[in-house]
Amino acid sequence: MRQATTILEIRTSGRGFTDITRSIADWLGSQGFAEGLLTLLCRHTSASLLIQENAAPAVRDDLTAWFERLAPEGPHYAHDDEGPDDMPAHLRATLTGVNLQIPIAQGRMLLGTWQGIYLAEHRRIPHDRQIAVHAIGE
Amino acid sequence: MRQATTILEIRTSGRGFTDITRSIADWLGSQGFAEGLLTLLCRHTSASLLIQENAAPAVRDDLTAWFERLAPEGPHYAHDDEGPDDMPAHLRATLTGVNLQIPIAQGRMLLGTWQGIYLAEHRRIPHDRQIAVHAIGE
Amino acid sequence: MRQATTILEIRTSGRGFTDITRSIADWLGSQGFAEGLLTLLCRHTSASLLIQENAAPAVRDDLTAWFERLAPEGPHYAHDDEGPDDMPAHLRATLTGVNLQIPIAQGRMLLGTWQGIYLAEHRRIPHDRQIAVHAIGE
Repeated sequence: MRQATTILEIRTSGRGFTDITRSIADWLGSQGFAEGLLTLLCRHTSASLLIQENAAPAVRDDLTAWFERLAPEGPHYAHDDEGPDDMPAHLRATLTGVNLQIPIAQGRMLLGTWQGIYLAEHRRIPHDRQIAVHAIGE
Repeated sequence: MRQATTILEIRTSGRGFTDITRSIADWLGSQGFAEGLLTLLCRHTSASLLIQENAAPAVRDDLTAWFERLAPEGPHYAHDDEGPDDMPAHLRATLTGVNLQIPIAQGRMLLGTWQGIYLAEHRRIPHDRQIAVHAIGE
Repeated sequence: MRQATTILEIRTSGRGFTDITRSIADWLGSQGFAEGLLTLLCRHTSASLLIQENAAPAVRDDLTAWFERLAPEGPHYAHDDEGPDDMPAHLRATLTGVNLQIPIAQGRMLLGTWQGIYLAEHRRIPHDRQIAVHAIGE
């Protein structure tokens, strides 16, 4: 049994979703685990991680609209140090959380056919984001 | 230290919750881990996993109504390839997520007394669902 | 490779957030892992875990108001065995979930600079809460 850890650096293009499935798969492939457990942690409080539909782009559009409905921008927040998109970004990050875990079998992540791994950027403008990645297995 | 992996197949009966605590416990018991970590991944984007109250069925009724309030069906979605319950199912799955992790001690999951593990089906009709299950420990 | 498990006991002071980052870090430090994976499980269905902003207290005030907006108290719940704050507490716990995972490197949790670990108490009055804590690595 052994383990491997890295920090993945992602430049987002502002509010929206970045598909990081390939980046994760490439790193995992380079580590040579046949069976194990992969863990991801987004190291920010206004960006988050989720697994969702990887085929229809309209799903991401609807997700964006839904985040805006559940945690709208507005003058009703106590915390607005960094502007009107600051607190809504924290709330939307709370909705999906910053953690994911994926079992590994036969050298690959056990994702379903239609599942992709997404980094959700909840601030309006592009940011440099870090994702801690850990694998354990053999 | 060793690990074990399986795919659990669950037939849901349409929208609602399936208690999978016993199925998971049975598989785990057959693997003989005294101490370790259990990970579950629902391999779908319109079904999800959660840990909730295992005693009062009314809790699940209220959860269902709440999911319907936060992510209602309606004509306002861009993605409706599979009908009006398609996009709300993705959103409700996002609310709870598709991952769970449970430490194992003395051969059993360290769940609280009132905690059960549920597969939430968010589509109207029954589906065959797969849950990837991984255990590591000794 | 080795592992360690404990149950952390936390007394909450009623509805709100308890910063448990230091308690977790202290236990982890006492276990001497250089690299590994930390897992937390809140063993309750009306309290939950989340990683959020550790600097501005206003973020927690806004989070509390948001939980109250998404899952308000009211007479419309089927489950109210323990009073009007019972079912909203289950729903708010569902929003954030009861699980967290954090990779460990150089003997420390790989949290971001602004990330803290919080136990969210969703019942009105103080409760004794248990968090199962598991670490694996070397």
